[in-house]
Amino acid sequence: MDFDLVIRNGTVVTASDIWEVCDIGIKDGTIVAVGPRLPAIAGAQEIDAEGAFITPGGVDSHVHLSQVHNANIDDIDRSTITNGIIPDRENYVADTYDTGTRSAVAGGTTTVITFASQTKKDASIIPVIENYHKLAKDQSYCDYAFHVIITNPTPQIVEDEFPRMVDEYGITSVKLYMTYKPMKLLDYQILDVMYSARKLGITTMVHAENADIIDWMTQHLEEKLMTHPYHHGTSRPPIVEAEATNRVICLAELMDTPILLVHISGGPATKHIRDAQTRLLPIYGETCPQYMFLLADSMRKGDFEGAKCVCSPPIREDKSDQDAIWAGIKNGTFNVVSSDHAPCKYNHPNGKQRGLQHGNLPYGKFRFIPNGLPGVETRVPLLFSGGVLSGRISPQKFVEVTSTNPAKLYGLKKKGSIAPGFDADLVIWYPQAKFQPFKLTNEMLHHAIDYTPFEGIEFKNWPRYTIIRGKVVFSHGDVIGEMGYGQFIQREKSLLPGPRDVWLSEWRP
Amino acid sequence: MDFDLVIRNGTVVTASDIWEVCDIGIKDGTIVAVGPRLPAIAGAQEIDAEGAFITPGGVDSHVHLSQVHNANIDDIDRSTITNGIIPDRENYVADTYDTGTRSAVAGGTTTVITFASQTKKDASIIPVIENYHKLAKDQSYCDYAFHVIITNPTPQIVEDEFPRMVDEYGITSVKLYMTYKPMKLLDYQILDVMYSARKLGITTMVHAENADIIDWMTQHLEEKLMTHPYHHGTSRPPIVEAEATNRVICLAELMDTPILLVHISGGPATKHIRDAQTRLLPIYGETCPQYMFLLADSMRKGDFEGAKCVCSPPIREDKSDQDAIWAGIKNGTFNVVSSDHAPCKYNHPNGKQRGLQHGNLPYGKFRFIPNGLPGVETRVPLLFSGGVLSGRISPQKFVEVTSTNPAKLYGLKKKGSIAPGFDADLVIWYPQAKFQPFKLTNEMLHHAIDYTPFEGIEFKNWPRYTIIRGKVVFSHGDVIGEMGYGQFIQREKSLLPGPRDVWLSEWRP
Amino acid sequence: MDFDLVIRNGTVVTASDIWEVCDIGIKDGTIVAVGPRLPAIAGAQEIDAEGAFITPGGVDSHVHLSQVHNANIDDIDRSTITNGIIPDRENYVADTYDTGTRSAVAGGTTTVITFASQTKKDASIIPVIENYHKLAKDQSYCDYAFHVIITNPTPQIVEDEFPRMVDEYGITSVKLYMTYKPMKLLDYQILDVMYSARKLGITTMVHAENADIIDWMTQHLEEKLMTHPYHHGTSRPPIVEAEATNRVICLAELMDTPILLVHISGGPATKHIRDAQTRLLPIYGETCPQYMFLLADSMRKGDFEGAKCVCSPPIREDKSDQDAIWAGIKNGTFNVVSSDHAPCKYNHPNGKQRGLQHGNLPYGKFRFIPNGLPGVETRVPLLFSGGVLSGRISPQKFVEVTSTNPAKLYGLKKKGSIAPGFDADLVIWYPQAKFQPFKLTNEMLHHAIDYTPFEGIEFKNWPRYTIIRGKVVFSHGDVIGEMGYGQFIQREKSLLPGPRDVWLSEWRP
Amino acid sequence: MDFDLVIRNGTVVTASDIWEVCDIGIKDGTIVAVGPRLPAIAGAQEIDAEGAFITPGGVDSHVHLSQVHNANIDDIDRSTITNGIIPDRENYVADTYDTGTRSAVAGGTTTVITFASQTKKDASIIPVIENYHKLAKDQSYCDYAFHVIITNPTPQIVEDEFPRMVDEYGITSVKLYMTYKPMKLLDYQILDVMYSARKLGITTMVHAENADIIDWMTQHLEEKLMTHPYHHGTSRPPIVEAEATNRVICLAELMDTPILLVHISGGPATKHIRDAQTRLLPIYGETCPQYMFLLADSMRKGDFEGAKCVCSPPIREDKSDQDAIWAGIKNGTFNVVSSDHAPCKYNHPNGKQRGLQHGNLPYGKFRFIPNGLPGVETRVPLLFSGGVLSGRISPQKFVEVTSTNPAKLYGLKKKGSIAPGFDADLVIWYPQAKFQPFKLTNEMLHHAIDYTPFEGIEFKNWPRYTIIRGKVVFSHGDVIGEMGYGQFIQREKSLLPGPRDVWLSEWRP
Repeated sequence: MDFDLVIRNGTVVTASDIWEVCDIGIKDGTIVAVGPRLPAIAGAQEIDAEGAFITPGGVDSHVHLSQVHNANIDDIDRSTITNGIIPDRENYVADTYDTGTRSAVAGGTTTVITFASQTKKDASIIPVIENYHKLAKDQSYCDYAFHVIITNPTPQIVEDEFPRMVDEYGITSVKLYMTYKPMKLLDYQILDVMYSARKLGITTMVHAENADIIDWMTQHLEEKLMTHPYHHGTSRPPIVEAEATNRVICLAELMDTPILLVHISGGPATKHIRDAQTRLLPIYGETCPQYMFLLADSMRKGDFEGAKCVCSPPIREDKSDQDAIWAGIKNGTFNVVSSDHAPCKYNHPNGKQRGLQHGNLPYGKFRFIPNGLPGVETRVPLLFSGGVLSGRISPQKFVEVTSTNPAKLYGLKKKGSIAPGFDADLVIWYPQAKFQPFKLTNEMLHHAIDYTPFEGIEFKNWPRYTIIRGKVVFSHGDVIGEMGYGQFIQREKSLLPGPRDVWLSEWRP
Repeated sequence: MDFDLVIRNGTVVTASDIWEVCDIGIKDGTIVAVGPRLPAIAGAQEIDAEGAFITPGGVDSHVHLSQVHNANIDDIDRSTITNGIIPDRENYVADTYDTGTRSAVAGGTTTVITFASQTKKDASIIPVIENYHKLAKDQSYCDYAFHVIITNPTPQIVEDEFPRMVDEYGITSVKLYMTYKPMKLLDYQILDVMYSARKLGITTMVHAENADIIDWMTQHLEEKLMTHPYHHGTSRPPIVEAEATNRVICLAELMDTPILLVHISGGPATKHIRDAQTRLLPIYGETCPQYMFLLADSMRKGDFEGAKCVCSPPIREDKSDQDAIWAGIKNGTFNVVSSDHAPCKYNHPNGKQRGLQHGNLPYGKFRFIPNGLPGVETRVPLLFSGGVLSGRISPQKFVEVTSTNPAKLYGLKKKGSIAPGFDADLVIWYPQAKFQPFKLTNEMLHHAIDYTPFEGIEFKNWPRYTIIRGKVVFSHGDVIGEMGYGQFIQREKSLLPGPRDVWLSEWRP
Repeated sequence: MDFDLVIRNGTVVTASDIWEVCDIGIKDGTIVAVGPRLPAIAGAQEIDAEGAFITPGGVDSHVHLSQVHNANIDDIDRSTITNGIIPDRENYVADTYDTGTRSAVAGGTTTVITFASQTKKDASIIPVIENYHKLAKDQSYCDYAFHVIITNPTPQIVEDEFPRMVDEYGITSVKLYMTYKPMKLLDYQILDVMYSARKLGITTMVHAENADIIDWMTQHLEEKLMTHPYHHGTSRPPIVEAEATNRVICLAELMDTPILLVHISGGPATKHIRDAQTRLLPIYGETCPQYMFLLADSMRKGDFEGAKCVCSPPIREDKSDQDAIWAGIKNGTFNVVSSDHAPCKYNHPNGKQRGLQHGNLPYGKFRFIPNGLPGVETRVPLLFSGGVLSGRISPQKFVEVTSTNPAKLYGLKKKGSIAPGFDADLVIWYPQAKFQPFKLTNEMLHHAIDYTPFEGIEFKNWPRYTIIRGKVVFSHGDVIGEMGYGQFIQREKSLLPGPRDVWLSEWRP
Repeated sequence: MDFDLVIRNGTVVTASDIWEVCDIGIKDGTIVAVGPRLPAIAGAQEIDAEGAFITPGGVDSHVHLSQVHNANIDDIDRSTITNGIIPDRENYVADTYDTGTRSAVAGGTTTVITFASQTKKDASIIPVIENYHKLAKDQSYCDYAFHVIITNPTPQIVEDEFPRMVDEYGITSVKLYMTYKPMKLLDYQILDVMYSARKLGITTMVHAENADIIDWMTQHLEEKLMTHPYHHGTSRPPIVEAEATNRVICLAELMDTPILLVHISGGPATKHIRDAQTRLLPIYGETCPQYMFLLADSMRKGDFEGAKCVCSPPIREDKSDQDAIWAGIKNGTFNVVSSDHAPCKYNHPNGKQRGLQHGNLPYGKFRFIPNGLPGVETRVPLLFSGGVLSGRISPQKFVEVTSTNPAKLYGLKKKGSIAPGFDADLVIWYPQAKFQPFKLTNEMLHHAIDYTPFEGIEFKNWPRYTIIRGKVVFSHGDVIGEMGYGQFIQREKSLLPGPRDVWLSEWRP
């Protein structure tokens, strides 16, 4: 019995259980023993966790890093990228793997799954994946994996490249968009993807919003000069999300294939997911802290400052939607809480604020605001402080949605729990009695973004240590890990229920 | 008090009431008195209805006459049409206004609403409407009105021509397709139509099926050689209809505008409509006799004879779907039962059977079978015999769904009931005791079609007289009315509940 | 063709249709002709209805007259009653047949169905019925019929007397209570009643509230001195009604027998009824104007004046419940709107206000307040003014729920519509342009009650004439009919759908 | 680091995770270390679990031992009982603590929660609890705890004794019956219990069936001589359970208190529970293997042999109900799968078969058949073999419903998982490859019952070792533990979500 690191006397939480006054022995990055009073090993580092919770390191399965802005998607030239270095940075989101993962570990996240995003011009996804490897390699503070965003599912890609993606590249999930002109797939294309995904055990993530409604509403709002950032929300009421959610659930039922609905924001879509789960369809749900802790009023601030809170789907107006999201977490509808970290600065390098294009309108046009918020660093502490410590969810539920379920759903077999044989990815919190609550300011955060939508929210705890594969990478407020320590994780297939072999007609794949 | 015609001692049925032993006095085509023992007027015709039901003439609000086959839609040249005469007939459906309305009156229908169908090439709907007037004028045995099918809702059409359509042409309803390549509108286009329809009090009919699923399934079934007519049904399981139904209800809720879902065939779509009605959305439902009396087994007959029962949505496989349709009629979900008379011959004039294209497959490919069945003549008797006389629905419900509701929904203000001031459009049935039940053969029918999907069904009664505006046009099995007697009816706006002024965001039209 | 009375040029409304500019010819109390320009008959009375609606006389199917107060139910001695005369009046509700039906006709109601109420001491219902005949005979201004309230369903009663009740007495409905100690039946007893009711075609009305919850809450509220009239509502939140509604629907489904849920007040019970109707169970719903036009705040007034608005189920607190009731009327869940006229004075003859028993509490104890409101006179005008004229419901829906449906449901075959052969029971409204809106005060009403819960509500129209079997009994504000003109109506079985012969196990009755 | 026992190289399963190739170190009955390659300790016992699953010992939270037959409940005299010895045994169920817990450990169950059952005559529950302590003490092979069955909730009991029950006796749950004459509580009484339970953190278990329906049906079935054992099911179709389930959920919502619905058998009740959970009510669900693996046909066998499968609620007729139960396990509606071990012999000691009372009927009367089945030994293996190994549920779900959740719900803080600090209650299965499937016969079982309803079912694995607090009590088919080794467990309050402080009116407890 040999340890590199022993953590002493913590309260260990898994998705199911709480182990009080427990030690964790770690060797070569792996948990090799848990139990009270593990032997002291000469030379092993010791950390005192008495009075503190120890939770599995956060797995943030929805993080955008080093991606091209949608608005600039036609202009990029990937050939200029070398490891981690992007010459035409202004075309990209502000967080790259270095700043993004630095922010992650500072907020208790030990694994991020980011996106390798095909553009419609990319005839093959293989170079896309390779490109993102170049962007991430030696740049990451935490472990990482890729989802592939499919925007043009040609037969070559779904039939020939998907198997390679799974087998060679260890990527077992893809993401689709039902909206955004540069990304959006037609239902027919979604079926093409699902058909192949089912055979290969790929989980399909879906951004479900009805593109036509959004476009129609946007145009008609502009005709009435209703273009203030707040009207981003006006353009896509909850029915926009609910319709697309129902539609893609129908496609998934027809194709008998598992999907995850990403970043669900409203009650009606939540109900569709719940109903599908009641019928045992392999439908999974994800939501994000912005839908749990913010309301649409945050978009009304000032002429344009509300743009800081513009994301899609939008933060909702009605408390009833926010309540439905919390209920969905509690009753199990949402399997995963991710950040959807989509890091665009408010003050863009080229001088414009969040895409502000005046025309004659002081408040610009919401159509040009990049959709998305930073949140990779705040996700875990928000759920711990505003969820567990406020009594809304149990510690186990916190672990389940921030770590265990994303690890299972995406086949991160050694992540997401505290147990022998698992990677020693851990968060050690402050003993509650010793922690001085504080209100968040953006200066405290480690991302490259010039604001946080959660500015001013009070935190009742924060990770004291973040540990990845047995190495402390964040301690008492400082990132002490090294860039490049993070490893790419080849993933296995989902560990959660998949196809049921139930069919709606005589057709079989 | 003066009458041209007096009907004596019948049992009059309205959507609400039954009046036993009642006379009806008619003058100048209008009902001018009802009551027992109306005075005898010298010179007035008298009809004895003792022991018989008298019901309002059927209003069939979904009838395709003189339309171009979808398959040929790019080839037509409307300029060659003069009144009622179509030179290139083989491009058209088999029933034109003469044979179609002859068939209608022989089955107790006194008003048909047919379609003036825009093609995507038609930049204006005005010539389309004029064209259909040419096709119908002096050709019709019964009264008729038009819906306009919109396949290309340009701004000119929805903004400029819709008001003219309503005001000048008396057309207060349009129909949209969510499927069929030559007809299908995108959601954005549907919103364009709804936006204008709402302002003008237009009712929008929607053929709701998910086009992409159908296309995808069709292609993949063909790859497996599953192309027998029966697999038309395989290609579009009930979820195909349910998805599109939910989607268009969402669009209608967003736009706060009334729609009618046409020819609903399955339980899941029925549930969506019912749920919307529970919430008071102005959503109306239509079904057809084929979904009430037939099951998908009818498509299995022979190598290709099943093609006779191919329509869209398909006749369903499960008894549970058929039961759901009947339940929807009884509980009020379906406001209208129409025929969806879509008259293509089994043996097409150019020698092919229902579009049979062999390849090497004896059973052809279902993809080429024209979608649709004849039924304008059988609709009313089927519901009377198989509904009222079999005890499934009350006489009042029969009247409501076959006559009163379609008249109200489409603004046929003087049609659809038996009452003073209404047109004297009546069906007098045989006294039940005197009627000899028979099994239907196609020879008994008056359409131009060489088959009926209802072949062999037993009828326990049949209209003895059909009367239109006080004139007997069908009597004891013979059409005695004259071609051209039927008049075009300028319609008013719907008499059923419309917009509620309830909105889903701050946007208002 | 001969008439005693001709009404000219009105706008006639039935549950289905509107006939504009129509005359109605009446002979011997029956409608014998309808149509424009009926001939003038020498000696016939003529009424000009130009510009006015003519609607079928109201059928109020839930009216308590000459009943014993529940509180006094053990003290009564029926042997002392002779026709219409009650010696111990203080034990009875304030309206007897004379004042109650006078009030009815003054509000456009032409038929009331009142209750012959068994006490638990009554071993037979035959004397009970006879007794109520004595109370009503020669006392009524309008036609009337009886429901029998069953509080002790012995085998003798359900097996031997129910058939006599139907056949000899023309009573085809019974009412049950699930609450109130002197009335309440156990589920077992309800099944006994339903078992017999089904065989005989009896419709069973059910007051559905969970008695145990009410008792428990009442006791625990009293312990906290929460006894103000308002807390009558606190003691029975909507779940109390919803639970019992679901329970009795289960019993009715098991027994395959039609029931009507009386005076439904809240959204959750409405949902249970709607769901049952969706499944085609023969479940009918009734609501009352108090649940449509009032909210629970009306019970908060003063120390005790709120007692005027105490009824059971209580008027609801949440607008959402009121909205659900209106929605239920519009979407057809509620077949009947009755008054539940339950006439107890605020200042009781023996000096107490509505049962005020002080103790030390200025606001008394809600437990002693008689449950029920007067409303037989206001029901029809409220729905016409606040429903039709405010645009919430159509004229046809108004007719359906106030007259046609109660007539059908309870087998009043010649009531409830305007048609040849029906009784000439009519309401002629004021031409809208000529009517001066007014605010209601209790002085305007004709009941024996010293308040109205609808005090101060504005009316935009009121019946100008009430006509019963061809005789004007109310005209321009004055009751001109004679006491005793009203006749007892022997009823037939329900004309609405009944048992379906669907069973939940192998048991069959 | 010191161990008494080390288990090597098993596949450990918790409700959340699977730890492959893991050792478990146990000292003084407690798990003190888990991890691969734990050190070998001199003198410690070692068990090789290579290739085998190790699961937490089963917690069967619904087991009837040493209870009086309902039929004899009035005859018992508890004063005659001394430790474990019951003089009038024929009045009791056949399994006492010795045989019942012997059977439990032989089937992988390490803790049973049995019932201390008040009779309506018992004015206090304290002697009842003491009495059951006498029955169990030194008699049990496994650990045990008590629920108290409340049949007469006097104020003394709920107000004074409930606190003692919780604090002194460590009993934090009670059970109520809504049916069975000797046990049944009225709704009012249920509220009394809930009111106190809420304050004390007691979980209330409810047997939910509508007693009146059952009684009514039973009587009417007997009138038709439909008394065969099969008609036990006829007498209580699923609606009987569904009604009571909805009712008690309403009571619990009103009182804001957690309940568990025991032994749910049908789809409709499952839906009520699911809907309540969707709304976050603290409603828990339990089902049993008989509803998962058997159908009502099992009651049809022979004249009377079907009596072996009579339990309440009955095993259901429709596959759809069975499917709904499985779905409820998978989607989380059912938190607990218990045995409801209710051990009455088929051949009763006094010579009657299962209460067979002939009359003239060869098949007796189902009314006299004791309701209940033996199953404490088969529960865990059935779910492992028919659930996990058949691919219907995951190993984690198996652990969750058979062990973790019952431990949490009932406050067995050191039971229900495999983790440091937990009791070393374990089941070690056979390595799958080494196990020879067999068909169950009753002879293989260790209870005192002369049949098993699961006779003939094939098992694909069975516990190889059952370990309680570090001691092997069952090994390779033999019970090797000692009677009396089992300890009574004082329980804490439920660890699952409880009251929400949401109220339905202004009343607060």
